[in-house]
Amino acid sequence: MDAIEAILTRTSIRKFTDQPVPDETIHTILRAGMSGPSCVNARDWSFIVVRDRGTLNKMADANGRPAEPLRGADFGVLVCGDLERAFPRAQEYWVVDGSIAAQNMILAAKALGVGSVWLGTWPQMNRVEALRALFNLPETQVPHSVIAFGYPAEHPAPRAPEWEEDRVHFEKW
Amino acid sequence: MDAIEAILTRTSIRKFTDQPVPDETIHTILRAGMSGPSCVNARDWSFIVVRDRGTLNKMADANGRPAEPLRGADFGVLVCGDLERAFPRAQEYWVVDGSIAAQNMILAAKALGVGSVWLGTWPQMNRVEALRALFNLPETQVPHSVIAFGYPAEHPAPRAPEWEEDRVHFEKW
Repeated sequence: MDAIEAILTRTSIRKFTDQPVPDETIHTILRAGMSGPSCVNARDWSFIVVRDRGTLNKMADANGRPAEPLRGADFGVLVCGDLERAFPRAQEYWVVDGSIAAQNMILAAKALGVGSVWLGTWPQMNRVEALRALFNLPETQVPHSVIAFGYPAEHPAPRAPEWEEDRVHFEKW
Repeated sequence: MDAIEAILTRTSIRKFTDQPVPDETIHTILRAGMSGPSCVNARDWSFIVVRDRGTLNKMADANGRPAEPLRGADFGVLVCGDLERAFPRAQEYWVVDGSIAAQNMILAAKALGVGSVWLGTWPQMNRVEALRALFNLPETQVPHSVIAFGYPAEHPAPRAPEWEEDRVHFEKW
Protein backbone atom coordinates (compact mmCIF):
# COMPACT_ATOMS: atom_id res chain seq x y z
CA MET A 1 0.00 0.00 0.00
CA ASP A 2 1.16 3.51 -0.79
CA ALA A 3 2.61 5.27 2.26
CA ILE A 4 0.53 8.45 1.96
CA GLU A 5 -2.63 6.36 1.57
CA ALA A 6 -1.70 4.28 4.63
CA ILE A 7 -1.16 7.40 6.75
CA LEU A 8 -4.24 9.32 5.58
CA THR A 9 -6.73 6.42 5.57
CA ARG A 10 -5.72 4.75 8.85
CA THR A 11 -8.57 4.53 11.32
CA SER A 12 -8.75 2.80 14.69
CA ILE A 13 -10.14 -0.74 14.34
CA ARG A 14 -11.81 -2.22 17.43
CA LYS A 15 -13.50 -5.33 15.97
CA PHE A 16 -11.43 -8.13 14.49
CA THR A 17 -12.09 -11.35 12.57
CA ASP A 18 -10.89 -14.76 13.78
CA GLN A 19 -8.35 -15.04 10.95
CA PRO A 20 -4.87 -15.36 12.46
CA VAL A 21 -2.17 -12.89 11.40
CA PRO A 22 0.82 -14.85 10.01
CA ASP A 23 4.04 -14.80 12.02
CA GLU A 24 5.96 -13.17 9.18
CA THR A 25 3.47 -10.29 9.11
CA ILE A 26 3.93 -9.81 12.86
CA HIS A 27 7.69 -9.87 12.30
CA THR A 28 7.43 -7.07 9.70
CA ILE A 29 5.26 -5.03 12.07
CA LEU A 30 7.85 -5.41 14.85
CA ARG A 31 10.69 -4.51 12.47
CA ALA A 32 8.77 -1.33 11.63
CA GLY A 33 8.59 -0.64 15.37
CA MET A 34 12.37 -0.92 15.54
CA SER A 35 13.07 1.37 12.58
CA GLY A 36 12.93 4.60 14.58
CA PRO A 37 14.08 7.30 14.77
CA SER A 38 14.92 7.46 18.49
CA CYS A 39 16.77 9.99 20.62
CA VAL A 40 20.55 9.61 19.99
CA ASN A 41 19.59 6.26 18.38
CA ALA A 42 19.06 4.89 21.91
CA ARG A 43 16.31 2.49 20.77
CA ASP A 44 14.97 2.71 24.29
CA TRP A 45 11.97 0.42 24.03
CA SER A 46 10.96 -3.21 24.32
CA PHE A 47 7.90 -5.09 23.08
CA ILE A 48 5.86 -7.92 24.57
CA VAL A 49 3.80 -9.75 21.93
CA VAL A 50 0.79 -11.59 23.34
CA ARG A 51 -1.52 -14.10 21.65
CA ASP A 52 -2.68 -16.03 24.70
CA ARG A 53 -6.39 -15.29 25.15
CA GLY A 54 -6.16 -15.32 28.95
CA THR A 55 -3.29 -12.82 28.97
CA LEU A 56 -5.04 -10.56 26.44
CA ASN A 57 -8.07 -10.49 28.76
CA LYS A 58 -5.84 -9.58 31.72
CA MET A 59 -4.23 -6.79 29.66
CA ALA A 60 -7.75 -5.48 28.94
CA ASP A 61 -8.53 -5.57 32.68
CA ALA A 62 -5.30 -3.69 33.41
CA ASN A 63 -5.59 -0.94 30.80
CA GLY A 64 -9.02 0.59 31.45
CA ARG A 65 -12.31 0.51 29.61
CA PRO A 66 -10.97 1.64 26.19
CA ALA A 67 -8.84 -1.57 26.17
CA GLU A 68 -11.87 -3.86 25.61
CA PRO A 69 -10.87 -4.52 21.94
CA LEU A 70 -7.95 -6.61 23.26
CA ARG A 71 -10.47 -9.35 24.15
CA GLY A 72 -11.18 -9.93 20.45
CA ALA A 73 -7.72 -9.13 19.09
CA ASP A 74 -5.55 -11.66 17.27
CA PHE A 75 -2.55 -10.34 19.17
CA GLY A 76 -1.57 -7.45 21.36
CA VAL A 77 1.72 -5.63 21.81
CA LEU A 78 2.77 -3.93 25.03
CA VAL A 79 5.29 -1.21 24.21
CA CYS A 80 7.60 -0.39 27.12
CA GLY A 81 10.14 2.35 27.56
CA ASP A 82 13.57 1.03 28.57
CA LEU A 83 15.15 3.36 31.12
CA GLU A 84 18.44 1.48 30.94
CA ARG A 85 18.86 2.56 27.33
CA ALA A 86 17.22 5.99 27.58
CA PHE A 87 19.31 9.13 26.98
CA PRO A 88 20.75 9.80 30.47
CA ARG A 89 20.57 13.61 30.23
CA ALA A 90 16.85 13.61 29.38
CA GLN A 91 15.40 10.18 30.08
CA GLU A 92 11.81 11.14 29.30
CA TYR A 93 12.57 11.02 25.58
CA TRP A 94 11.54 7.36 26.11
CA VAL A 95 7.94 8.62 25.86
CA VAL A 96 8.62 10.12 22.42
CA ASP A 97 10.60 7.09 21.23
CA GLY A 98 7.93 4.61 22.38
CA SER A 99 5.31 6.66 20.53
CA ILE A 100 7.34 6.57 17.32
CA ALA A 101 7.75 2.78 17.61
CA ALA A 102 4.03 2.30 18.20
CA GLN A 103 2.98 4.53 15.30
CA ASN A 104 5.42 2.76 12.96
CA MET A 105 3.82 -0.57 13.93
CA ILE A 106 0.29 0.76 13.42
CA LEU A 107 1.12 2.14 9.97
CA ALA A 108 2.98 -1.01 8.90
CA ALA A 109 -0.03 -3.07 10.01
CA LYS A 110 -2.39 -0.85 8.01
CA ALA A 111 -0.21 -1.32 4.92
CA LEU A 112 -0.38 -5.11 5.40
CA GLY A 113 -4.18 -5.16 5.80
CA VAL A 114 -4.04 -5.57 9.59
CA GLY A 115 -6.24 -3.31 11.70
CA SER A 116 -5.23 -1.91 15.07
CA VAL A 117 -6.21 0.41 17.85
CA TRP A 118 -3.81 2.31 20.09
CA LEU A 119 -4.70 1.95 23.77
CA GLY A 120 -3.10 4.64 25.86
CA THR A 121 -1.26 3.60 29.02
CA TRP A 122 1.30 6.23 30.12
CA PRO A 123 0.70 8.82 31.69
CA GLN A 124 -2.25 7.05 33.42
CA MET A 125 -0.21 5.58 36.26
CA ASN A 126 -2.89 3.13 37.44
CA ARG A 127 -2.60 1.47 34.02
CA VAL A 128 1.21 1.66 34.07
CA GLU A 129 1.32 -0.07 37.47
CA ALA A 130 -1.31 -2.69 36.61
CA LEU A 131 0.59 -3.75 33.48
CA ARG A 132 3.90 -3.68 35.32
CA ALA A 133 2.41 -6.06 37.91
CA LEU A 134 0.76 -8.32 35.30
CA PHE A 135 4.05 -8.92 33.46
CA ASN A 136 6.25 -8.68 36.57
CA LEU A 137 8.41 -6.13 34.74
CA PRO A 138 11.82 -5.03 35.98
CA GLU A 139 12.02 -1.46 37.29
CA THR A 140 13.79 -0.36 34.13
CA GLN A 141 10.73 -1.09 31.95
CA VAL A 142 7.86 1.43 31.88
CA PRO A 143 4.60 0.41 30.17
CA HIS A 144 3.95 3.03 27.48
CA SER A 145 1.04 1.82 25.31
CA VAL A 146 -0.84 -1.30 24.30
CA ILE A 147 -1.85 -1.94 20.70
CA ALA A 148 -4.56 -4.46 19.74
CA PHE A 149 -4.07 -6.00 16.28
CA GLY A 150 -6.13 -8.24 13.99
CA TYR A 151 -7.79 -8.40 10.60
CA PRO A 152 -10.58 -5.78 10.53
CA ALA A 153 -14.20 -6.82 11.04
CA GLU A 154 -15.31 -3.19 10.68
CA HIS A 155 -14.36 -0.37 8.33
CA PRO A 156 -15.20 2.91 10.04
CA ALA A 157 -14.78 6.21 8.23
CA PRO A 158 -12.02 8.49 9.56
CA ARG A 159 -13.26 10.54 12.54
CA ALA A 160 -10.80 13.36 12.12
CA PRO A 161 -11.26 16.29 9.78
CA GLU A 162 -8.81 16.28 6.88
CA TRP A 163 -7.56 19.75 7.63
CA GLU A 164 -7.86 22.23 10.49
CA GLU A 165 -6.83 25.67 9.37
CA ASP A 166 -6.42 27.02 12.89
CA ARG A 167 -3.81 24.35 13.77
CA VAL A 168 -1.28 25.66 11.23
CA HIS A 169 0.71 28.85 11.54
CA PHE A 170 3.18 30.21 9.01
CA GLU A 171 6.44 31.90 10.03
CA LYS A 172 5.06 33.04 13.42
CA TRP A 173 2.40 32.22 16.01
CA MET B 1 6.36 4.87 -2.28
CA ASP B 2 5.30 1.67 -0.56
CA ALA B 3 4.49 2.24 3.11
CA ILE B 4 6.67 -0.59 4.46
CA GLU B 5 9.58 0.65 2.34
CA ALA B 6 9.08 4.21 3.61
CA ILE B 7 9.10 3.06 7.25
CA LEU B 8 12.04 0.64 6.97
CA THR B 9 14.30 2.78 4.78
CA ARG B 10 13.78 6.16 6.48
CA THR B 11 17.00 7.66 7.77
CA SER B 12 17.67 11.07 9.29
CA ILE B 13 18.77 13.58 6.63
CA ARG B 14 20.84 16.52 7.84
CA LYS B 15 22.07 18.00 4.54
CA PHE B 16 19.63 19.44 2.06
CA THR B 17 19.75 20.78 -1.51
CA ASP B 18 18.59 24.29 -2.45
CA GLN B 19 15.58 22.95 -4.37
CA PRO B 20 12.41 24.33 -2.80
CA VAL B 21 9.71 21.89 -1.65
CA PRO B 22 6.41 22.78 -3.40
CA ASP B 23 3.59 24.16 -1.25
CA GLU B 24 1.31 21.24 -2.14
CA THR B 25 3.92 18.78 -0.86
CA ILE B 26 4.14 20.71 2.41
CA HIS B 27 0.34 20.63 2.58
CA THR B 28 0.31 16.82 2.24
CA ILE B 29 2.98 16.51 4.94
CA LEU B 30 0.89 18.66 7.31
CA ARG B 31 -2.26 16.66 6.50
CA ALA B 32 -0.34 13.52 7.44
CA GLY B 33 0.53 15.20 10.74
CA MET B 34 -3.17 15.77 11.36
CA SER B 35 -4.25 12.21 10.57
CA GLY B 36 -3.57 10.86 14.05
CA PRO B 37 -4.49 8.88 16.04
CA SER B 38 -4.67 11.07 19.17
CA CYS B 39 -5.97 10.46 22.68
CA VAL B 40 -9.82 10.62 22.61
CA ASN B 41 -9.34 12.23 19.17
CA ALA B 42 -8.28 15.42 20.97
CA ARG B 43 -5.92 16.47 18.17
CA ASP B 44 -3.98 18.36 20.80
CA TRP B 45 -1.22 19.85 18.69
CA SER B 46 -0.39 22.83 16.53
CA PHE B 47 2.29 23.40 13.89
CA ILE B 48 4.39 26.41 12.97
CA VAL B 49 5.85 26.15 9.47
CA VAL B 50 8.94 28.28 8.92
CA ARG B 51 10.78 29.10 5.70
CA ASP B 52 12.32 32.41 6.68
CA ARG B 53 16.10 31.88 6.85
CA GLY B 54 16.55 34.22 9.81
CA THR B 55 13.86 32.43 11.83
CA LEU B 56 15.27 28.99 10.94
CA ASN B 57 18.65 30.15 12.26
CA LYS B 58 17.03 31.39 15.48
CA MET B 59 15.26 28.02 15.87
CA ALA B 60 18.65 26.32 15.49
CA ASP B 61 20.07 28.62 18.19
CA ALA B 62 17.14 27.76 20.48
CA ASN B 63 17.14 23.98 20.06
CA GLY B 64 20.70 22.93 20.90
CA ARG B 65 23.63 21.71 18.87
CA PRO B 66 21.77 18.83 17.12
CA ALA B 67 19.49 21.47 15.53
CA GLU B 68 22.23 22.77 13.19
CA PRO B 69 20.57 21.12 10.13
CA LEU B 70 17.82 23.76 10.37
CA ARG B 71 20.29 26.32 8.98
CA GLY B 72 20.29 24.49 5.64
CA ALA B 73 16.70 23.25 5.65
CA ASP B 74 14.12 24.28 3.08
CA PHE B 75 11.57 24.56 5.86
CA GLY B 76 11.16 23.65 9.50
CA VAL B 77 8.11 22.69 11.51
CA LEU B 78 7.75 23.35 15.22
CA VAL B 79 5.27 20.85 16.68
CA CYS B 80 3.57 22.10 19.83
CA GLY B 81 1.31 20.34 22.27
CA ASP B 82 -1.97 22.20 22.84
CA LEU B 83 -2.94 22.00 26.52
CA GLU B 84 -6.30 23.58 25.82
CA ARG B 85 -7.30 20.55 23.75
CA ALA B 86 -5.44 17.88 25.73
CA PHE B 87 -7.43 15.15 27.55
CA PRO B 88 -8.19 16.83 30.90
CA ARG B 89 -7.81 13.65 32.99
CA ALA B 90 -4.31 12.90 31.68
CA GLN B 91 -2.97 15.96 29.92
CA GLU B 92 0.47 14.50 29.27
CA TYR B 93 -0.93 12.41 26.41
CA TRP B 94 -0.03 15.57 24.45
CA VAL B 95 3.53 14.20 24.39
CA VAL B 96 2.36 10.97 22.73
CA ASP B 97 0.03 12.76 20.32
CA GLY B 98 2.70 15.26 19.26
CA SER B 99 5.08 12.37 18.61
CA ILE B 100 2.51 10.62 16.40
CA ALA B 101 1.94 13.82 14.42
CA ALA B 102 5.68 14.34 13.94
CA GLN B 103 6.34 10.75 12.86
CA ASN B 104 3.43 10.88 10.37
CA MET B 105 4.97 14.02 8.85
CA ILE B 106 8.43 12.44 8.65
CA LEU B 107 7.10 9.30 6.95
CA ALA B 108 4.91 11.26 4.52
CA ALA B 109 7.93 13.40 3.63
CA LYS B 110 10.04 10.27 3.02
CA ALA B 111 7.34 8.91 0.70
CA LEU B 112 7.37 12.19 -1.25
CA GLY B 113 11.16 12.24 -1.62
CA VAL B 114 11.66 14.88 1.08
CA GLY B 115 14.31 14.24 3.70
CA SER B 116 13.99 15.23 7.34
CA VAL B 117 15.57 15.03 10.74
CA TRP B 118 13.72 15.01 14.05
CA LEU B 119 15.22 17.49 16.52
CA GLY B 120 14.16 16.72 20.06
CA THR B 121 12.83 19.57 22.19
CA TRP B 122 10.67 18.27 25.08
CA PRO B 123 11.68 17.18 27.77
CA GLN B 124 14.76 19.44 27.53
CA MET B 125 13.18 22.45 29.19
CA ASN B 126 15.88 24.94 28.16
CA ARG B 127 14.90 24.21 24.55
CA VAL B 128 11.18 24.32 25.36
CA GLU B 129 11.55 27.75 26.96
CA ALA B 130 13.85 29.15 24.25
CA LEU B 131 11.36 28.21 21.51
CA ARG B 132 8.45 29.48 23.55
CA ALA B 133 10.21 32.83 23.86
CA LEU B 134 11.24 32.93 20.18
CA PHE B 135 7.66 32.52 18.97
CA ASN B 136 6.05 34.32 21.90
CA LEU B 137 3.74 31.34 22.38
CA PRO B 138 0.67 31.41 24.62
CA GLU B 139 0.93 29.39 27.86
CA THR B 140 -1.31 26.68 26.37
CA GLN B 141 1.27 25.76 23.70
CA VAL B 142 4.25 23.57 24.66
CA PRO B 143 7.09 23.14 22.15
CA HIS B 144 7.40 19.39 21.54
CA SER B 145 9.83 18.86 18.63
CA VAL B 146 11.30 20.60 15.64
CA ILE B 147 11.63 18.87 12.28
CA ALA B 148 13.99 20.12 9.54
CA PHE B 149 12.82 19.28 6.01
CA GLY B 150 14.31 19.53 2.52
CA TYR B 151 15.36 17.52 -0.51
CA PRO B 152 18.24 15.23 0.54
CA ALA B 153 21.82 16.17 -0.33
CA GLU B 154 23.07 13.00 1.41
CA HIS B 155 21.92 9.40 1.44
CA PRO B 156 23.22 7.79 4.64
CA ALA B 157 22.69 4.09 5.30
CA PRO B 158 20.35 3.27 8.19
CA ARG B 159 22.21 3.35 11.52
CA ALA B 160 19.87 1.00 13.34
CA PRO B 161 20.10 -2.78 13.21
CA GLU B 162 17.17 -4.38 11.38
CA TRP B 163 16.28 -6.60 14.30
CA GLU B 164 17.21 -6.83 17.96
CA GLU B 165 16.20 -10.18 19.35
CA ASP B 166 16.50 -9.08 22.98
CA ARG B 167 13.94 -6.28 22.50
CA VAL B 168 11.08 -8.69 21.78
CA HIS B 169 9.38 -10.94 24.30
CA PHE B 170 6.60 -13.40 23.58
CA GLU B 171 3.66 -13.91 25.96
CA LYS B 172 5.66 -12.86 29.04
CA TRP B 173 8.66 -10.78 30.08
